[in-house]
This record gives sequence, structure tokens and C-alpha cells, in this order.
Amino acid sequence: MTQNEVFQYSTMSALMAGIASHGAAISSVLEHGDHGLGTFRNLDGEMIVLDGAVYQMKSDGSVVAIESPADVITPFATVTRFKATANAKTAVGSKEDLLDLLSRLFPSARNHFVAIRIDGVFKSVNVRTAGGQQSPRESATGVANRQKVNTFRSVRGTVFGFRAPDYFMGINVAGIHIHFISDDRKEGGHILALESEGEVDVAAAQLSKFHLELPTGDDDFNEAELAPDAKGIAAVEG
Amino acid sequence: MTQNEVFQYSTMSALMAGIASHGAAISSVLEHGDHGLGTFRNLDGEMIVLDGAVYQMKSDGSVVAIESPADVITPFATVTRFKATANAKTAVGSKEDLLDLLSRLFPSARNHFVAIRIDGVFKSVNVRTAGGQQSPRESATGVANRQKVNTFRSVRGTVFGFRAPDYFMGINVAGIHIHFISDDRKEGGHILALESEGEVDVAAAQLSKFHLELPTGDDDFNEAELAPDAKGIAAVEG
Repeated sequence: MTQNEVFQYSTMSALMAGIASHGAAISSVLEHGDHGLGTFRNLDGEMIVLDGAVYQMKSDGSVVAIESPADVITPFATVTRFKATANAKTAVGSKEDLLDLLSRLFPSARNHFVAIRIDGVFKSVNVRTAGGQQSPRESATGVANRQKVNTFRSVRGTVFGFRAPDYFMGINVAGIHIHFISDDRKEGGHILALESEGEVDVAAAQLSKFHLELPTGDDDFNEAELAPDAKGIAAVEG
Repeated sequence: MTQNEVFQYSTMSALMAGIASHGAAISSVLEHGDHGLGTFRNLDGEMIVLDGAVYQMKSDGSVVAIESPADVITPFATVTRFKATANAKTAVGSKEDLLDLLSRLFPSARNHFVAIRIDGVFKSVNVRTAGGQQSPRESATGVANRQKVNTFRSVRGTVFGFRAPDYFMGINVAGIHIHFISDDRKEGGHILALESEGEVDVAAAQLSKFHLELPTGDDDFNEAELAPDAKGIAAVEG
């Protein structure tokens, strides 16, 4: 795969339906991208991929560097071989600010994916981390009811994620979906809200090709009702 | 791309919104598949791709073999490098029969794509052929109101198409979407109904990877509201 294409394993609807017992080896996902996000088997934490390195951000507050990606499974991940085509140095007060910025940087990408990376210091980053399923097939909404929410203050770190077009809701998450990890690799999670401390470095790229690999040999995936649940996905992943 | 993966250019929602003035050279689509279906610039007829050959089936009843695929544009096409992994010799009375057959042949593909090819004699094949937009951005529903409907009887020919999972509605067409061309390459179109004359040869394959290429540099595509219109798509493409 060339630069700035989306590769995704499984679908957000499947994750919502709790299809998270099996998946792809993370090493196979990394063949398609060096930046991205996702989750782990049984929804045990949040994944961020930066410069080819993979981190698991858990609800107990710990962050684990995945040293053997061939041995770790992901039931859902979205990655890209990221190469910024637009940059900005700007203050960011909210996710809405980011959406506005991306619309300005990529006026012709309304119906395309955009990847975004931000490096800098943040006054506050509000994240959640999924704490894992209590039983197989527990829905993501059920898991979200027990998610850990944390706010990191005056923290230097990196944000990475995607803005997906509305019509991808169900397969991906419509709108912006971003994860965070601190520079010291000790804190992170799925971003609910963020505010930069002054200007931060924003790098982004428009992505016009989307590659989806669906789980095979997985009875749970085969049996799942994968109708898009826009409201549920927005509640859990928005 | 390896065998039995889906490659698609643009989305069904874009086609519904009448985004059909620009597109990809058919030659570039053929790099990803030797069997498939689609349409032509301005929704001028139905496309079928069989063994690497491309045909345009027009509403005036003519069928044109596309001899220079680099010079012809498609605004929407779905193709695969088709290699059957299951075969059946059976009578087919309807599209519902085909859906039942595919469910039996691929019990673990409920949430996957399936490609299907049928060769044989048909007692009747009822098709429609789109007659083209009367103005740029005319919706597919508008074009469908003027579509030509034909029934071919006792005709030998080939059916090719896809069954897409429900959750792909909008990006593709949920359910079965098949085109037909006669052996003499003189008749064909988008199948509304079909009935085989005795047994026909059915060949099919499950497809677990989906590659989508979105139009770039196309203001029409960028501006389009691509919310899935399940009802409209089912009416026009079902």
C-alpha cells in the first residue's frame, strides 16, 4: 500500500456488537500503515500507532508498548502510512476546532477521509479508556458504561486519528476519531475533548483510498447484525 | 490485487446523487479485476465485465464492446479478479433463489461480499438499461424513470454480479446486484428478474477484502450529500 491510504480491519458496527474475541495480528495491520488507532482483544484498552510503534492504553491508567505485534490480536484497527500533505501551527480549543481546521486545509475532502496528527503541549486532554468486556460479545455500549475517564493537564504528547465522511458511519465512525498518548508514553486514551496550550503542530493528509479487510472464520462476526447504529457509535466513539 | 477481492470506484450514493460526469478510465479499473459491473459517463447504459472484456449495454438495445478501455470513463464500477471457489449446477427461478443458493454455498459469508457468475440458457431475463442523464447531476432515480425495460426469452448468456452485505448500503447495493449479457453479445442489461431453462452453471466466491477508490478533483463528488438512501437505491438498483 502506498502512502495516505486507509487500511481497516473489521468494522465499527462489529465492534459495537461486541465482536472482539478474535482478530488480526497487529503485525499484519502494521504492513498497511505506521499511524493509526484501534482497540485490543475483548476491548481491553485503546490502541494508538505512531511511527510504527504500537501502544495499549489501559483503563487502569497503564500504557503498554506492544513489543511483539505478531503475538497480539486486534479486533478493530484503522491505520495509514501517514505522510502529511498539509501543516498548520495553531491553537486548538476543541474537536470542533479541528473539524473546522481540516475543512479549511482540505476544502475538497468533504466526502473523503482525512488523517490528522498533532504534536505539542496541551492544557488539558480528556480521554476515556475502555476497560474490557466482562463476557464475550458484550456490546461496546456496555463496555463504555464502565469506561475510565481521565483528564491530563499540561501534558506534552501526540494526537492521531481520522476524520471519516458521514456515509462511512457503521463501517467507520462518522466525524473525528482521535487518540492521544503523552510524550513519556505513560498516559493516553480515546480523546473526548482537548485544549492546546498555545500553538501546536498539526499535520494532516487527505485519503482517497479505503481498504477494508473483514474477519473470516469468525462465527461471531458472521452471526452479527451489522446494521449501522449511528446513535450508538456516536455515543461510544464520537 | 489478488483474486477474489472487491475493487470499487466511487459509491452507489454518489451515483444516486447523479455524480456521473467524471470518473476513472476503465483501463485503470481493469487493473483490479476481470469480472464486474458498473455504468458509464452520464449513466449511459449498463456495464458488464467478463473475462477482462467490457461491454456497454445501452437503452436503445445496442451492445458496444469497449475496445479502448483507456479512452472510456466510468463514474461507478465494482470488479473482482474472479476465481470461483464454489460451483453448482441448478435451476434458478428468481433472484431470491440465487440469494438462497449463495447462503447455502457460503454459510459463513453473511457479512461478506459474494461474487456470482452464471452461464447457461434462460427461459427469460428481464432487464433494464439506463438511458443516460438529460442534464448533469440528474439523479439516478430521475434517470430510472426513463429506463428501458426488456425481456429476453430462451436466451443463452452470462450473468455476473455481487451480493453485498446489508451494512454496505450506500457505498454499494445491499443484496444482490447482477447484470446480464447474451452469448452473441447483442442483448443485456441490469437484471430485474430471471428464470433459467433447466439447470445452469453457477460459480461463486466469497470476498473478504474491499478496496474503495473515491473520486478526487471532482467538485460534484465533493459537494454531494452522500447520506445512504436505502429506499432509493433499492428502487433503482435492487
